Amino acid sequence: MVAEDGAADALCCVPAQGDGALDAAEAAVLAARFKALSDPNRLRLLSMVSSSADAEACVCDLSEPLDLGQPTVSHHLKILVDAGILHREKRGVWAYYSLVPGALEGLAATLTRKA
Amino acid sequence: MVAEDGAADALCCVPAQGDGALDAAEAAVLAARFKALSDPNRLRLLSMVSSSADAEACVCDLSEPLDLGQPTVSHHLKILVDAGILHREKRGVWAYYSLVPGALEGLAATLTRKA
Repeated sequence: MVAEDGAADALCCVPAQGDGALDAAEAAVLAARFKALSDPNRLRLLSMVSSSADAEACVCDLSEPLDLGQPTVSHHLKILVDAGILHREKRGVWAYYSLVPGALEGLAATLTRKA
Repeated sequence: MVAEDGAADALCCVPAQGDGALDAAEAAVLAARFKALSDPNRLRLLSMVSSSADAEACVCDLSEPLDLGQPTVSHHLKILVDAGILHREKRGVWAYYSLVPGALEGLAATLTRKA
């Protein structure tokens, strides 16, 4: 898993090789991010955050729509934070989540770079 | 896992809800595709196929660069085929792999739709 700090930087620094094929290190970074996206509940949480007003959502508003307990929701959100996809900010008693700028666009670009 | 036939269609038919949040069925389809991309060796195979001349690669040319046995490579390629990302065509004794047109672009679009 990619560490939270510097994860966005790591993605920015994964250039294509001259021939377009990924080397092992590049592939490991990208695979960790796609793994974070490989769970339906995490994708739904991500879409709820990104479609929220202000593109930010309180963990207190994310549990009910998925019919999951808050510990489970927090677990999934942590995986998305660790992968550098979501940003977490504690304000008062609640944690608020927003998209890390450029993270999803960076991943999308890797998919279409050579396609 | 998404079946090979119709997988591309399925992705084309996963519209955003009015509020941009994914429902459970949409999320399951997308998560299965991201799961296929969540392995470093599969990402490397995919990049090797997409950067090949003619955007097509013989399984016979994909084993050596990854230092994996051909059964392992074939296993990973099958997962990418089952996810609707790669197309497989048998010609003579070898299987040839190419990108399913639009599959990666469709996945990329889901990542940036609301970001």
